[in-house]
Amino acid sequence: MSNSEIDQLVQLLSKLPGLGSRSARRAMLFLVKHRESLLLPLGQALVSAADSIKTCKICGNLDTTEICSVCANEARDQKTLCVVEDVSDLWALERAGAFSGLYHVLGGTLSALDGVGPEDLQIESLLRRIGEGTVREVILALNATVDGQTTSHYLADRIEEVSGDLTISYLAHGVPVGGELDYLDDGTLATALKSRRKSN
Amino acid sequence: MSNSEIDQLVQLLSKLPGLGSRSARRAMLFLVKHRESLLLPLGQALVSAADSIKTCKICGNLDTTEICSVCANEARDQKTLCVVEDVSDLWALERAGAFSGLYHVLGGTLSALDGVGPEDLQIESLLRRIGEGTVREVILALNATVDGQTTSHYLADRIEEVSGDLTISYLAHGVPVGGELDYLDDGTLATALKSRRKSN
Repeated sequence: MSNSEIDQLVQLLSKLPGLGSRSARRAMLFLVKHRESLLLPLGQALVSAADSIKTCKICGNLDTTEICSVCANEARDQKTLCVVEDVSDLWALERAGAFSGLYHVLGGTLSALDGVGPEDLQIESLLRRIGEGTVREVILALNATVDGQTTSHYLADRIEEVSGDLTISYLAHGVPVGGELDYLDDGTLATALKSRRKSN
Repeated sequence: MSNSEIDQLVQLLSKLPGLGSRSARRAMLFLVKHRESLLLPLGQALVSAADSIKTCKICGNLDTTEICSVCANEARDQKTLCVVEDVSDLWALERAGAFSGLYHVLGGTLSALDGVGPEDLQIESLLRRIGEGTVREVILALNATVDGQTTSHYLADRIEEVSGDLTISYLAHGVPVGGELDYLDDGTLATALKSRRKSN
């Protein structure tokens, strides 16, 4: 408490999302108690990460190489491009393991409130990639928020200007797998009903 | 996701109390986005802490010196010793600023279930400090849990064996300041009623 080095460490830890000042102190004590197994390895991993983790020049994913392992993998479907807001969304899709194409990380959504305009996002590089002509389908996998949907519409317009003959698609809305109707919001239920599938 | 260095960092972060694998990933992305302002400083602070943070030889507090700043401060009341379970409790008492004596960190509580016996706690060093004869009052400020109270009783017995003429005291139980009666548990209410004070 009294010590400036300990204080500084707690302050840095409390800046992490999900940690307040109290949980940062708890994390700090836990770290000091596990000095050899956690404190030192974590410190070294962070210092090394600061040096080695790079943003992929093509898609914006994070990796230790200039071109990320997804973009470098020639076995992946080069004709399908999935546009996501953030690296965490890319990772979520990779975890799901249902997509074998390439990605493009926008780095956020358009937002008048937060002053985020098209020039703040990776839109020019997206249009350039599409302009190269290999891509046949662009999946706009942005979050189902107002900002996400606004950005989707804007992107669709811009993409059509560049290339008129490719498919633009969106993620389906509906009932989450394993979800209970009773707990769903009205908007999702209405969309799920409107997009109902015929039994085969 | 695919990268072993990123994976390793997420795994280390997820070992911190309060962070699961999902929030560890979020923290990791946040760190990489704030590379200069947070990732590198935090890494360096951790590496340096692993080297410099020591456990005080006298009381068990954490500091960068062999004898912590509390023990080294001769202006503090050397006659009153406050026994706490953990360093975090010591810090909580220091934050409250209501105690000017010295501390002794036990390092846990006796627990038959977890197999923690007297030899696993800093009890011998506590009795040695008391045996030196300077201390006139020992405040047993252990948590108001079953294990904490068991340990308090055990300590009181051991302390009386060593030195019969010093005062042993406990923290008062009662209604927390700012607390509402309606939300208090029955045990606390009963204790608060039993320990009621006369109006002056």
